[in-house]
Amino acid sequence: MTRTVQTPRPSRFGDLFEMLTDRGRALLRWRDPAGQVTAPPGLPEMGELLLSRRGEASGVALARALVTAFEEADEGKRLDFLATLADRFGPDGTAVEKALAALQRDPGSAEAIEALHRAAEPRRQELFRRLNLAPGGTAALVRMREELLRHLGDNPVLRRVDGDFAHLFASWFNRGFLVLRHIDWNTPAAILEKIIRYEAVHAIQNWDDLRNRLQPTDRRCYGFFHPQLVDEPLIFVEVALTRAIPETVAPLLDLDRTPIDADQATTAVFYSISNTQKGLAGVSFGNFLIKQVVEELKAELPNIQTFVTLSPVPGFAAWLAQARKGGDMLDDGLRAALKPLDQPGWHVDTQAAQALREPLLTAAAIYFLRARDAKGRAVDPVARFHLGNGACLERLNFGGDVSANGLKQSHGLMVNYLYDPSRIEANHEAFAERTDIAASDAVRRHLADAQTTTKKEKP
Amino acid sequence: MTRTVQTPRPSRFGDLFEMLTDRGRALLRWRDPAGQVTAPPGLPEMGELLLSRRGEASGVALARALVTAFEEADEGKRLDFLATLADRFGPDGTAVEKALAALQRDPGSAEAIEALHRAAEPRRQELFRRLNLAPGGTAALVRMREELLRHLGDNPVLRRVDGDFAHLFASWFNRGFLVLRHIDWNTPAAILEKIIRYEAVHAIQNWDDLRNRLQPTDRRCYGFFHPQLVDEPLIFVEVALTRAIPETVAPLLDLDRTPIDADQATTAVFYSISNTQKGLAGVSFGNFLIKQVVEELKAELPNIQTFVTLSPVPGFAAWLAQARKGGDMLDDGLRAALKPLDQPGWHVDTQAAQALREPLLTAAAIYFLRARDAKGRAVDPVARFHLGNGACLERLNFGGDVSANGLKQSHGLMVNYLYDPSRIEANHEAFAERTDIAASDAVRRHLADAQTTTKKEKP
Amino acid sequence: MTRTVQTPRPSRFGDLFEMLTDRGRALLRWRDPAGQVTAPPGLPEMGELLLSRRGEASGVALARALVTAFEEADEGKRLDFLATLADRFGPDGTAVEKALAALQRDPGSAEAIEALHRAAEPRRQELFRRLNLAPGGTAALVRMREELLRHLGDNPVLRRVDGDFAHLFASWFNRGFLVLRHIDWNTPAAILEKIIRYEAVHAIQNWDDLRNRLQPTDRRCYGFFHPQLVDEPLIFVEVALTRAIPETVAPLLDLDRTPIDADQATTAVFYSISNTQKGLAGVSFGNFLIKQVVEELKAELPNIQTFVTLSPVPGFAAWLAQARKGGDMLDDGLRAALKPLDQPGWHVDTQAAQALREPLLTAAAIYFLRARDAKGRAVDPVARFHLGNGACLERLNFGGDVSANGLKQSHGLMVNYLYDPSRIEANHEAFAERTDIAASDAVRRHLADAQTTTKKEKP
Amino acid sequence: MTRTVQTPRPSRFGDLFEMLTDRGRALLRWRDPAGQVTAPPGLPEMGELLLSRRGEASGVALARALVTAFEEADEGKRLDFLATLADRFGPDGTAVEKALAALQRDPGSAEAIEALHRAAEPRRQELFRRLNLAPGGTAALVRMREELLRHLGDNPVLRRVDGDFAHLFASWFNRGFLVLRHIDWNTPAAILEKIIRYEAVHAIQNWDDLRNRLQPTDRRCYGFFHPQLVDEPLIFVEVALTRAIPETVAPLLDLDRTPIDADQATTAVFYSISNTQKGLAGVSFGNFLIKQVVEELKAELPNIQTFVTLSPVPGFAAWLAQARKGGDMLDDGLRAALKPLDQPGWHVDTQAAQALREPLLTAAAIYFLRARDAKGRAVDPVARFHLGNGACLERLNFGGDVSANGLKQSHGLMVNYLYDPSRIEANHEAFAERTDIAASDAVRRHLADAQTTTKKEKP
Repeated sequence: MTRTVQTPRPSRFGDLFEMLTDRGRALLRWRDPAGQVTAPPGLPEMGELLLSRRGEASGVALARALVTAFEEADEGKRLDFLATLADRFGPDGTAVEKALAALQRDPGSAEAIEALHRAAEPRRQELFRRLNLAPGGTAALVRMREELLRHLGDNPVLRRVDGDFAHLFASWFNRGFLVLRHIDWNTPAAILEKIIRYEAVHAIQNWDDLRNRLQPTDRRCYGFFHPQLVDEPLIFVEVALTRAIPETVAPLLDLDRTPIDADQATTAVFYSISNTQKGLAGVSFGNFLIKQVVEELKAELPNIQTFVTLSPVPGFAAWLAQARKGGDMLDDGLRAALKPLDQPGWHVDTQAAQALREPLLTAAAIYFLRARDAKGRAVDPVARFHLGNGACLERLNFGGDVSANGLKQSHGLMVNYLYDPSRIEANHEAFAERTDIAASDAVRRHLADAQTTTKKEKP
Repeated sequence: MTRTVQTPRPSRFGDLFEMLTDRGRALLRWRDPAGQVTAPPGLPEMGELLLSRRGEASGVALARALVTAFEEADEGKRLDFLATLADRFGPDGTAVEKALAALQRDPGSAEAIEALHRAAEPRRQELFRRLNLAPGGTAALVRMREELLRHLGDNPVLRRVDGDFAHLFASWFNRGFLVLRHIDWNTPAAILEKIIRYEAVHAIQNWDDLRNRLQPTDRRCYGFFHPQLVDEPLIFVEVALTRAIPETVAPLLDLDRTPIDADQATTAVFYSISNTQKGLAGVSFGNFLIKQVVEELKAELPNIQTFVTLSPVPGFAAWLAQARKGGDMLDDGLRAALKPLDQPGWHVDTQAAQALREPLLTAAAIYFLRARDAKGRAVDPVARFHLGNGACLERLNFGGDVSANGLKQSHGLMVNYLYDPSRIEANHEAFAERTDIAASDAVRRHLADAQTTTKKEKP
Repeated sequence: MTRTVQTPRPSRFGDLFEMLTDRGRALLRWRDPAGQVTAPPGLPEMGELLLSRRGEASGVALARALVTAFEEADEGKRLDFLATLADRFGPDGTAVEKALAALQRDPGSAEAIEALHRAAEPRRQELFRRLNLAPGGTAALVRMREELLRHLGDNPVLRRVDGDFAHLFASWFNRGFLVLRHIDWNTPAAILEKIIRYEAVHAIQNWDDLRNRLQPTDRRCYGFFHPQLVDEPLIFVEVALTRAIPETVAPLLDLDRTPIDADQATTAVFYSISNTQKGLAGVSFGNFLIKQVVEELKAELPNIQTFVTLSPVPGFAAWLAQARKGGDMLDDGLRAALKPLDQPGWHVDTQAAQALREPLLTAAAIYFLRARDAKGRAVDPVARFHLGNGACLERLNFGGDVSANGLKQSHGLMVNYLYDPSRIEANHEAFAERTDIAASDAVRRHLADAQTTTKKEKP
Repeated sequence: MTRTVQTPRPSRFGDLFEMLTDRGRALLRWRDPAGQVTAPPGLPEMGELLLSRRGEASGVALARALVTAFEEADEGKRLDFLATLADRFGPDGTAVEKALAALQRDPGSAEAIEALHRAAEPRRQELFRRLNLAPGGTAALVRMREELLRHLGDNPVLRRVDGDFAHLFASWFNRGFLVLRHIDWNTPAAILEKIIRYEAVHAIQNWDDLRNRLQPTDRRCYGFFHPQLVDEPLIFVEVALTRAIPETVAPLLDLDRTPIDADQATTAVFYSISNTQKGLAGVSFGNFLIKQVVEELKAELPNIQTFVTLSPVPGFAAWLAQARKGGDMLDDGLRAALKPLDQPGWHVDTQAAQALREPLLTAAAIYFLRARDAKGRAVDPVARFHLGNGACLERLNFGGDVSANGLKQSHGLMVNYLYDPSRIEANHEAFAERTDIAASDAVRRHLADAQTTTKKEKP
């Protein structure tokens, strides 16, 4: 009789270790079909085996062996295998030719086109599906793609393999399969240490800093998890519940602030959102996460009516440097007014800062509302994400982040994007179809200032 | 402060109800992009919307609306929509033509073939992936295919839609995403009632019968579950732990038997295995389930060395009737010896039964080892499943199931298939490549008897 | 690596079995302090051992051995042991004498009195606490007292032992240690079968009947559980959510009724409350359970404003039979008006039933408001429970339960007790201190009718 | 519909906060029986109310109010209340006199003695039981006693109140109600931070140090929890799995060591055991915890055959200083040989250390085996704990802990106590009855050395 009650565990750490050990053993015990112990075949041969008859009977064991062999191989061998996936595990040429011939006999036939579609599926797609049979197979495939992405620049041929990964992961990590979880101070440490590791926006210094973001009554953190990646948040967002839209981030992260009662809050501020899995690049979670968290908070705390971000503006300083050099984005008056930016330490010189406030906000309004990149898109990547989700640019905050990094990338500017459920759909469509940028009157007014200034200064 | 502790729930029954209600409301609140309440569009239009820009911003809501609308529509409308999926949501013709042209310019190019593959993907595949965003979307898609399968005979055009369902489900219900669960008397009633409902081999009479299969120390039940179908086992197997390979099923199901201590058992008998989701037809779980349960039991109860089934022989009586009429499967001696089968009630006539034993077992050995269907496959469907998994035909049991149904379909015959982990792979390959049937010497001896009998009787 | 995920289990059935087996073995391996296997001592000797030095070192093992030995002994031996608890495991005489002497030297000294209190503690109290060390010890002690209660009538000496059980259980099963759980269709079958078994008011016919009380949106069931008795509800209450206070029970239990949406309900009806553990007799849970469930429902469903019971009146018919024979409870007019009660089948004779309605309700009002038992208490036991909890007698329902049993015990009468949180405390005090019975005006009016009728009829 | 899945939580942090808030409000809403808002009564009056009729009807609310009022009162008021518990909530004088009179009429009557026992129960015991009705009441009572213990030295009258706390807690925290839990890296952070805070033997520096004690394959941590104190381990033990009995603690705590596979370990080392709740002083958990963990590890890892501690010797240096000054514990030869101890830094002087090894171990053997304190007990408190549990003194480790603290309290000595299940009971009895100290031959040999040395040096 055992009386131990395990702490309920969403993950199975022990298993992972056991599994890795087991895998190693599996390779040491490689057997040919007659049951004789023999040297394990190369990675491509194992891939062929897994796609063969034998793979049907012993898929789990073969998949596990291939996954282990891949992870224990040296980098060169791994890269070779990825390249092999491109050339040797593409579509079955004979099958494609047959299907093409059939289509020629019956041009335009839907049946024939769909048969061609099936014939032309690269064999590596089925290989990936079978690799997923291995214990921990999903995670192994995500790691495999992460490695592939590192080599993509030097090996363009891998782009085709990457396309199949992307296609498969978009299907497997469909939002319908994700689970939203509240992450708090009762979450297992094994998950929390990953929050520390993956936080990409405002680095978490230590466990006290982490607790300060999870435990107070006016803080929340939510993440999407996939059932097969138990201890791994795919993306998470940190939320502050406040009584007003904040302008600067420092007070939110202050360890000594006094929390407010969640019932008293009117505003939910998404002040950090981080993706965690490089191997899932291109599979979009953030849009769903923010909208789901809005739903959660509305249900739990009906007093919260405003949902905003407090966001960095990573592309602003670089764009502005360019615009100040020439082009027609800025007029001369504005250019002159921005001069003090070149003075080091302007942000601690009250007078200089005061003088810069309006010109900089005007320049920022131009950056967001008028500037476009070579592809005709909004320049700022964070703006593209939130505006693409249907949010609206609500406010520009001068001096929102005066850390070294904040000054460097955006002259201290931070902005709020507003998620207004009733306008999300229209904003999204306008943005996606006509690159229309949803912005509040307050933001637009800075643009008007620009014109006024310009006009005033022109004569 | 609430002091209620919810019984831990693997499922969320309440949500389901709430969701259905919500869905209904969603439809009543249908709005055009300008936010005006309006009549909801037809199902195909909703499908187009979901694939459009608007679907990107409001995918969850649109998917939910389409799922609800489909389920609340009458059968005619639903069938129309399924047909629309075939013709209107096939591949994008223009894109296909372009891709074909590109391939003609560069024949055999892997890039071009793969681009063609992507271009030729039927649009309904993306539609299915987006429908999966709806709460309960996975289950809704499984039900949608179940309905489609009912209409397939009368609507061959639906076969193409079915192919896409099958492809998607094979990927989503990949064994790597399934969770094996022990089902016992502590399992929530909401799941247990489904075990009663879905048991396909030996019907469960009532909750006492169910308890008798779950609670005793020498009984086990395991099922595969998918994280998105929380209360729904996809397949489950019932296991009896015994001290010998059983010949007949009645003692296993006897409510009054005395259980043995699990530690004392040497044999695990898979006496019933049931698929539950018609909408997942063609996605194979049974092979994985049996092998996984073998692993589980080996780890938990090291004394268990033998893993067998006790299986029906559903095709035997029909085949035998045919073979007795003519053909060269049976010789005259055997035909004569089988005569008593025509006498009603032979199984309760000790003498007749005794006389029939050897001839019937010989005929059964011929049925399993020599007979082939039109496609060259083993005749018996249950045999094809277990032999295809790599099991071996271990024993033929005369009078194993003398219920009305057992007599009718197999003259009372039952058989044991043996799962011997060390021979599974070789058996499977031999069966799959050469239709070699793995059978024990005991079974083969019945065949030898056939020849001997034949020879003896010929002069 | 195991991939099985156990259904989350609030109980550990397997352990129980293992434990019982282990216990048996423990007895077979009884060893003397030198480690020699020997015959196990008698139950009283084991009790002494457990209280001795050896009990300090090996308390768990000894407690387990004694519990097993007791449960495996025949009834005679068990009764002997219970009697031994009374005489041999009472207070330590020498210690009591010393403490009395000390008190005589310093009469009235609080220290001396408290020292005497400690000295006079029966040794069986410490024995019970040590028995609790055994796995499943708490449950074993509850069963032990259940057996003791069966013998109490014939063995008054056991009353002292029972007093110690009662004292201990009141402390261990303090409401602060109980957990309220919502019992629904996702509750493990192992608990649900106990709901079927223990339901004491309106028997549950089968699992369909059970589901009908748990699964619909307008039904709830809550129970108190103790952490040490995992699968055993101590008490549970069944609740119907309705739009009005019901008069009769049949519609509540109807399998074919249409549920209402819980949000639409205005009234919560406690239509059945059942204690389950005879061994916990005298430890009061019902009062706390009802009040806690009122809190739960108020928080979950703010529309519910009315909390009532629909209760039987088990003492009415017997009291009325007596009162009709003589005494001054009923006047002659009322006696005459009640005559039709003697006519078999009056309840299906519309005219007779109509004529009886008012007189019977008047008699019921007298029964509740005026009648007292020999100890001066309200006569009806169910009334004593609810009025003692601070409820108020809200309504008398003629023909509320016309089942054979309902007619026999109360001429078909049912009543509603109202739990009005704002009046509970005052009602309770008035009832407890002055036997004041809280009743609605509607109920009191029936009493006024009595006087009027009487007056009218007197001349 | 909500799709959030909460991380499974063994605790309910949120509730605690909410509860405290609620409590405050409860006080602000204090009402007299007529329902009028009024100033809350003093703590003693609230205690009387809770024991009164009103306490029966509104026990939960009153208990909550008293607990809040006590915790929000200033220290003086709290101390007054504790003193009131001693004088005003003692036994009921009248009842005691009656019971004494009855006993005088029937001297020695078991009934009369037991009635006296009940009459003499201090009223505060029932008060404590009713306070336990408050949400969080158990924890509040433990805190209340913690405060009482701080004042005990200055207020001897509180000793009687403490006796009742101790009696009640021994019953409520009976090992039968405790749950053993494995604490690992998947345990919620809210519990882990308490492990950091409460570790009393080898302080945990930070979260990395903590992870190093929980996550590696060869480390374990177990704690006892009480169902009512959800996030609070009552006691926990840290275990290292090793291949030999360790002599020094530093390598066990080294962050850079390489873990071994748990299956390879032969020895489990209990290197730290910490109580956490001062308010539970005198309720003994350690004995049960160690024995339970031995059972757990034996079941999980059959290769582990040896269960030892690595323990400090906190009383050694102080005792040795005394013994070196005079008395007959040490002879002159040994005294001389111990001289180098007075040389600062002897432990880094290889020669001095080498010379001291044998004499110091001999002195230690005398300390453990011969020295007794004023009450005739073994001098060392840690020794009393483990020997009292039935362990045996297995080995003395010279230089086991050369930290500043280790040198100061024990000249660097550490020891191993061995838990040999087959000898625990005999060891315990011998120790408890005859102060016989179980020690290995190796330890006793150091004593023999003492005599030899002595003899040799005497001439």
